[in-house]
Formats: sequence, structure tokens, C-alpha cells
Amino acid sequence: MSNNSIHSFGIGIASKNAAGDIIEVLYPKPANEVSAELSAALLGACGLGAGECGFVELDSNQYEQLVSQLPEALATALAGLQVQTTQQALVLCVLGADLAPTSIPEAFLKLQLLSHRLVKPHGVKLDGMFAVLKNLAWTNEGPIDLADLPARRIAARAAGRTLDVASVDKFPKMTDYVVPEGVRIADAARVRLGAYLGAGTTIMHEGFVNFNAGTLGAAMIEGRISAGVVVGENSDLGGGCSTMGTLSGGGKEIISVGRDCLIGANAGIGFPLADGCTVEAGLYVTAGTKVRLLDASGAEIKQVKARELSTLQHHLFRRNSITGAVECVPLKTSVTLNEALHSHN
Amino acid sequence: MSNNSIHSFGIGIASKNAAGDIIEVLYPKPANEVSAELSAALLGACGLGAGECGFVELDSNQYEQLVSQLPEALATALAGLQVQTTQQALVLCVLGADLAPTSIPEAFLKLQLLSHRLVKPHGVKLDGMFAVLKNLAWTNEGPIDLADLPARRIAARAAGRTLDVASVDKFPKMTDYVVPEGVRIADAARVRLGAYLGAGTTIMHEGFVNFNAGTLGAAMIEGRISAGVVVGENSDLGGGCSTMGTLSGGGKEIISVGRDCLIGANAGIGFPLADGCTVEAGLYVTAGTKVRLLDASGAEIKQVKARELSTLQHHLFRRNSITGAVECVPLKTSVTLNEALHSHN
Amino acid sequence: MSNNSIHSFGIGIASKNAAGDIIEVLYPKPANEVSAELSAALLGACGLGAGECGFVELDSNQYEQLVSQLPEALATALAGLQVQTTQQALVLCVLGADLAPTSIPEAFLKLQLLSHRLVKPHGVKLDGMFAVLKNLAWTNEGPIDLADLPARRIAARAAGRTLDVASVDKFPKMTDYVVPEGVRIADAARVRLGAYLGAGTTIMHEGFVNFNAGTLGAAMIEGRISAGVVVGENSDLGGGCSTMGTLSGGGKEIISVGRDCLIGANAGIGFPLADGCTVEAGLYVTAGTKVRLLDASGAEIKQVKARELSTLQHHLFRRNSITGAVECVPLKTSVTLNEALHSHN
Repeated sequence: MSNNSIHSFGIGIASKNAAGDIIEVLYPKPANEVSAELSAALLGACGLGAGECGFVELDSNQYEQLVSQLPEALATALAGLQVQTTQQALVLCVLGADLAPTSIPEAFLKLQLLSHRLVKPHGVKLDGMFAVLKNLAWTNEGPIDLADLPARRIAARAAGRTLDVASVDKFPKMTDYVVPEGVRIADAARVRLGAYLGAGTTIMHEGFVNFNAGTLGAAMIEGRISAGVVVGENSDLGGGCSTMGTLSGGGKEIISVGRDCLIGANAGIGFPLADGCTVEAGLYVTAGTKVRLLDASGAEIKQVKARELSTLQHHLFRRNSITGAVECVPLKTSVTLNEALHSHN
Repeated sequence: MSNNSIHSFGIGIASKNAAGDIIEVLYPKPANEVSAELSAALLGACGLGAGECGFVELDSNQYEQLVSQLPEALATALAGLQVQTTQQALVLCVLGADLAPTSIPEAFLKLQLLSHRLVKPHGVKLDGMFAVLKNLAWTNEGPIDLADLPARRIAARAAGRTLDVASVDKFPKMTDYVVPEGVRIADAARVRLGAYLGAGTTIMHEGFVNFNAGTLGAAMIEGRISAGVVVGENSDLGGGCSTMGTLSGGGKEIISVGRDCLIGANAGIGFPLADGCTVEAGLYVTAGTKVRLLDASGAEIKQVKARELSTLQHHLFRRNSITGAVECVPLKTSVTLNEALHSHN
Repeated sequence: MSNNSIHSFGIGIASKNAAGDIIEVLYPKPANEVSAELSAALLGACGLGAGECGFVELDSNQYEQLVSQLPEALATALAGLQVQTTQQALVLCVLGADLAPTSIPEAFLKLQLLSHRLVKPHGVKLDGMFAVLKNLAWTNEGPIDLADLPARRIAARAAGRTLDVASVDKFPKMTDYVVPEGVRIADAARVRLGAYLGAGTTIMHEGFVNFNAGTLGAAMIEGRISAGVVVGENSDLGGGCSTMGTLSGGGKEIISVGRDCLIGANAGIGFPLADGCTVEAGLYVTAGTKVRLLDASGAEIKQVKARELSTLQHHLFRRNSITGAVECVPLKTSVTLNEALHSHN
């Protein structure tokens, strides 16, 4: 796109709380490849200058008029949006540039750009997002402001309904916004909006993917992908395995998992794992774990902290079950995903 | 049943996608003990020869007529089935023999035979099932074909509803089809249709049971039972523990857990565990883990790989916390389930 | 409150099964600071003597009359309760004293006192509660008695609806009853009614909190808090970590976690952890684990079982990755929670 193009935009349906504030936005088809002409029109519709970010509520005429200006595929995907109640609104959000989000519509747009695979993890600025997003009750009657929840709960019960509060969080689950092509997600409560899942990815029940994190291609994920962690294609994260995040707890290292890796069940890493590496089931290797690096004959080359091995490909990390020492040894074969589990996603 | 009996059959309600294809079937009461006479009638209703498998859609007259031929208990359980929309259908599915499933109604019938405890894990052929089943969105508005999802999502929002996509998978959760007697399942999203849960089984929030797997009697399950794994009665799988499956990742050994076993929290096994054995919390023993086998006095008998210990009963697997070695020692007492947690299921 | 005050009471809406028995009660605003005058009125309304516990169904006149006697804040919070169907009832439950619960309304009141932070874990008698509570299907159509479930399932399908059975358990999830101020709970299915969550607590997707257990202040919980376990403020339980409970499996020690503690991902404890202590990721320390206690210079002081270290503050438990021994060493710095993750709850 030209220098006169905006970063991205979305047209969607927002939810409001009882006070009339927008608390959440669904963009059925966000876009980030925008012509200069359309960019100018969208900025204008929002009353924004070049490089600015913002949003505006649309009435149904403005919505129709905007959609008529869109490329056909986009116009088709956005057809039929309408609102029924004063707790909903049609919204246009325009990101003139990739600035830190300062409003809920902007933050939700960026999270949806990630989950629609329009940008990769770390591909947009999310600084300050926690303070922008509201902590909401995600219910079978839609997102509800926590201030409104007690009255809504009584009203539902008194009407003979059950108000089911599935989550109380700043982030909703991804699948309520988009299911990217070629994925399976056994328990969708465990994949946050803002996750990036490559085609061919299967997230089993014990898998988890935070926002700004994910998989770059086919992968079998039965472990936890923390915020910021990216997993290369053809890798397998075993049941309950852990990738150490940087938001809380442990380390400051930014963790990644290469391609063709296997992290065994209940294992974990606190350092970046290079292509073709395996961590044995049940072994947690932190960045500071002292490791005996062995050659193919089993002789010790040296003892190093695991973080120094983060570029070493095709090795196995294991704990010697007789000596108790953590060892790193060259690997002859590498992981192959079970084709049957992925080819029909 | 005689040689002239079919393997099993089910009458149920199917869901269809927008294209009119069946994508899922609920059989409220599948049956696998069928008289020769009824078998002949059911095969005829489906237009099948002996030993063949298939299904047919029923109109309400055909359904009434079929139900009138059933034994009373079955007829009662199947009373009241009807469809409201063109996206539903009444279905009869007949398995003349235990063949690999070739249609969605057949695959769903076999999974429901398992969860109704009519067949045990490994008791029916499931070969090729992944290719037969469709990857669906399981929502609060029922199962939805992924091709239909974006339009359904917009339609729901535009009508002021929320479309909640709880799972994107080929397998639904078991409890939406059947809750076998005498079980508790704290988080039902973690038990797939096709699980077999013995009476007295409690699946806590961290527990998980895949299809073609389960428990043979009373059990406390806070860990993961992978596809194909069977757990004997009176066993306890601690929080987050792992049983290694054969579908992805590690081993080729078929794993089982005997009776009166305890696998501690965050532990795991990659080999079959014999009756009365305990694996200490946090210890993962793979099939290839070299283990120091000790006698009751603590003297080493020999060092062996764990897979060679798969028939050794009443032993404890632990990691010596001073030497770091994995040891296997005779066990004096064995696990007893907490009666209060099970007797009132 | 004076000696003439009751322990607590609740006014709420109960669900009934097809047989007309109460199976569950929502109390929007339970109370345990009750004047002597109101106490007398409430005992009278239930036909109870001093120190007795019980409940009574209310018609709408009785309900209005009762609410008019309440302090204003309470009356406001309880305004608007009403029932639509014969499967609901307005209920007053009064606990004249803290006796073991003998009815479902009493047990539900005690669980809600905990989750409303009116009593701390271990602050009320719950003896015998498992036998009092019914195992129910928790569905999108409310709690359903398991005896009623098959007919309800068919009726829903035949009407074109889906009956979603999210849980089969004696305990519902907490958020369907109350969301205490200042908490986030990413996957609400994993926090049982009866959990006590301090303000500033975040429960991530992998976190879990059982009843009669919880956190006393700000905390980041990505691990499992078993029944009876209490976590001090400013502590961090890493992804998938385990605290050993006493209901099943292992030990008899009552576990707690002090303040300013960090239990690493996939780690676990089977003994009480003192203030300011850290357990390294992946390490499970049971009560009986023999530990090498080291001084700041790394010299061994002695070898002791972990349970003897349960009052030792500001220490790190780790497994030496070269020798395999579990060590306990003085800790220089302690955990600090990420402010951004908590300050906006």
C-alpha cells in the first residue's frame, strides 16, 4: 500500500453498557490493505487526519453509504450488519498508523487483525492495552459491564432464564469473533482473542494460546503458549507443557519455539528453543538451568546455561534418570505430526 | 444375540448444514442387543443387506412405525422425537457389522455406543473416523458448519443475540449426548463424546478424557486420559497428570493404568502401569526411562527401562531427591479413594 | 453482632426438579451482620428457635414484607426477585448458628457467604456437605436434576434448541452466583462456588480454585488451589502448578501458601509454603521430599524433609540440574506482581 494508506480499519457492531459506553466491538472482516482513495474516505468519515486513529458510530445510512465504497469481497462480508437495541451500535474504527491503542474499538480492532491473520504476533503495537480494555462479564447474553451484572443476573432469573457468566476478563475468547481457516480448537475458552493460529493448527483441550502469540503453520498444541510466544510450523507441544511468558512470574527472555520441535507432556521451557529440538516429557528447562552438553558419543563438551543453547538445532534436552543431570544431546530423528489429525481441519 | 443380529442401531435427531448435509446425530438411546427379528426389520428399513452399515432419514410416520416395533423400554426412551426445521432430520442408523465408519451417522453412533457404556474402549472399529467427521463449530445455537459460521455470526449479532462458539472440533462434548449413571464431570468441555466412564467416576476440572478411552469403575480423575487409554477401577489420577497417547508426540506403546493405582499430580506415564502402582507427584516416567529397581531393603536389583516393569504390581516410582535417580520400590500400602467424593454421584 | 444475632441469612430464588424438590438457590446478597431485632424476625419467619437453621418458601407477599424490614442497602440489592414457573421458588434461609449444613438451601448459603467474602475459607462448617448437595446437570436452561435430563434433552432438540450440559457436579461455578469486586477469571468454569477470591486476584485460564479455598489479596493464579488451600497476598502461582489437597490422593498436611510466594509453572507443593518462598518451575516438593538445606555460601546445613521447612521464609526450592538433588537456599529477591495485570481489575 502507498504511504497515503491507513494501517487498517474495521466496520462492526459494538456492545454498550448501561451508561452508554462502548465496551466491545465485533469486526466481521477487518482489513489492512487499503487503497489511498479508500483510506482518505475512511479517515474523513471518522474526522481524522493522516496518521491518526479513532472511531465513530454510524447510523444505518452512513453504514450503507460506507459499505458501498468498499471492494466487493469486503462489502459482501460486511453486508447485513444492523443493530436492534440502544445497547448496540454500528462502528467504524480507523487506524491511520500503528499507534498504541487508546480506545476500546482500537484495541479490539488490533486483536482481531491478529486473529484474522492479517498481522503476525508482535506485528502491532499493543502498549497500554490492559488499561484501555474493560474487565467484562462474558455471558450467554453477551458482554456485560460488571457494574450492570447484579441487576442483569436478577432480571434473568426473575424471567426464568439463567445468566451464564463464562468469563470475567478483559479479553474474550477468539472463536466468538473469528475462526480462521484450517484450525481445530477443542476448548475454545482457552484461546484468547488476539491469538494467531496458523492453518493446520489443532489446539487440544489442554492447549492454551494467549493474545499476541500463536503458531505459524500446522501444529499440534496440547500445552500453553504464553503471551508473546510464537511456535514454528510442524511443532508439537505436548499435554500441559509450558512456555514461560514475560507478563508475570519468571523470566525476561522472550520465548519462542522453532519449527519441527517437540516439547513433551508436562515439560516446559524458559528459553527460546531452536528448530528441530525436543524437550523430554516432564522436564522443565529454564533459561538459567545448567545443562551438560554432550556429543554424539555421550562425552561432555561443556556445562552451560540453557539460554546459551537457544540457537542449537536438532538436540534433545533430557534429565538423565540415573544421575539426575540435565543433558543436551544431538538428535537423530525429529518429530513428525500425525497427518490424520491435521489434514482434515 | 444370534448370528442373524445386527451389531447395533440408533434412532435420533440429526443436524444439517445449509447445504442439507447431515453433520451430527444425537441418539438418545442407542442399542446393541437386538433380536434377529428386529434386526431384519431395521436392515430392511435402511435398505441394507446382512452385515452392511448405513442410515436413512425418516418421516414422522416411518419414525412412529419403527418405534412401535421396538421393545418397550427402548420405545419409551425414544418417544417424542420430532423435527422443527429443515436443518434437522429424524434418522435411523444401522450397523449390520462392526465395520470402519464411512458416514457421520455411523461414526456418531459408535461414539455414543461407547459413552452409553454399551461397548468398551477398543470395542468397536473407529479406523478412518477423522476423515469421516466434519470439523464443526459447537455453539449455543447447535452445531454449525464452518462454511455457514460467518453469516450465522452476523445474523445473531444483528438480531441482538450472541453466538457463542464453545469448540471447533470434530468431536462434541459427551454430556450434550449422554450422562451415564453415577458420574460427576466438573468441566464437561473436557470429556469428548466417545469417552467411557465407569459408574463412580469423578472427573475434576483438570481431568480430561478423550474418545475410545476412559475408566472401568469408580475413579478420581484430575489428570488426562489420552485416546485409547483405559484406567482400572479404584484408581486415582492426580491433578494435571499425563498418560501418553499414541495419536501424536511420543510413544508407540499402548498405555493403560491398572486398578488401585495412583498417579500423582503433574506426574506422567509413557508405559502401562500395573495394578496397585503409584507414581510420585511430579515424576514423568516414559517407556524408555532407565529405572533403578530396588528391593524392600533399598538394595538395587537391576537397572531397567520402565517398559519392562509394566507388569510389576504394587510398586512405587519415585525420583530420589538426593541422588536424582528414578527408582522403583515395593509399596506397602495402596491408594484408597475418598468414599465421600464418590458415593453420592 | 450481639449474642442474640443469627449467624447469617439469605433471600433468593431456588430451582426445583420435576418432583418439586429444591436443588439449588441463588442468594443475590447474603448477609452475616444481622441486628438482634432482624434476627428475631427472620427466625420467626422460618419458624426456627435461637441457634437453629432452616429455610422456608415465600410467596410474593411474604417476600415483599420481609424485604421491607431489611436495611436499605440490602433491600435495594434484593429488589425485583420473583418467580415465573413452578420450577422456581422464593426462599428465605436462616442460619441461627454455624452448624453442619443439612439442606441444599443451607449448603448453598454457606458457599455463597464464602464467595461474597463474608467468611474466609475454613470460616464455616461444611461437614457432610457432599451428602447434602445433589449431583446436577448445569445447563444453558439452568440446573437440571439428572433424573429429568434425558426427557429435557429430547424436548429441547425436538423444539429446535440445543441443551448444553456444561457440568455435571454438586458445585456450580462461582460466577453464576457472584463476581466479587476486583477480580478477573479467564475461564470461569474453573472456579467453584465457595471459592474466596481476594480483591486484585487474577485467575488465568489454567488457574483453578476449589470451594473453601482461595486468595487473601492480590494474586496471579495460573495454577490449582485445592479445597482448603489458602494463598497469601502478592503471591504468584505459575501455569499448571499444583497445591496438594487433602480430599483425595496424597497427603494429610493442610497446605497453604504464604504471601510474596512464587510457585513456578508445572511445579507443586505438598507442604505449607512460608512467606517469600519460591519453588522453581517444574519441581514438585511433597511433604516427605528429602531436601538439602544450604546456607548462602552453598554449604549443606542438613538434610530434612520438606514438611520441616514449612516455616522457613524467603527461601528457594530447586533441583540442582547437575546433581539432581532437591535443594533449599536463601533467596535474595522476592516476587513482584506485574502491576498492569492487576491494577485495572
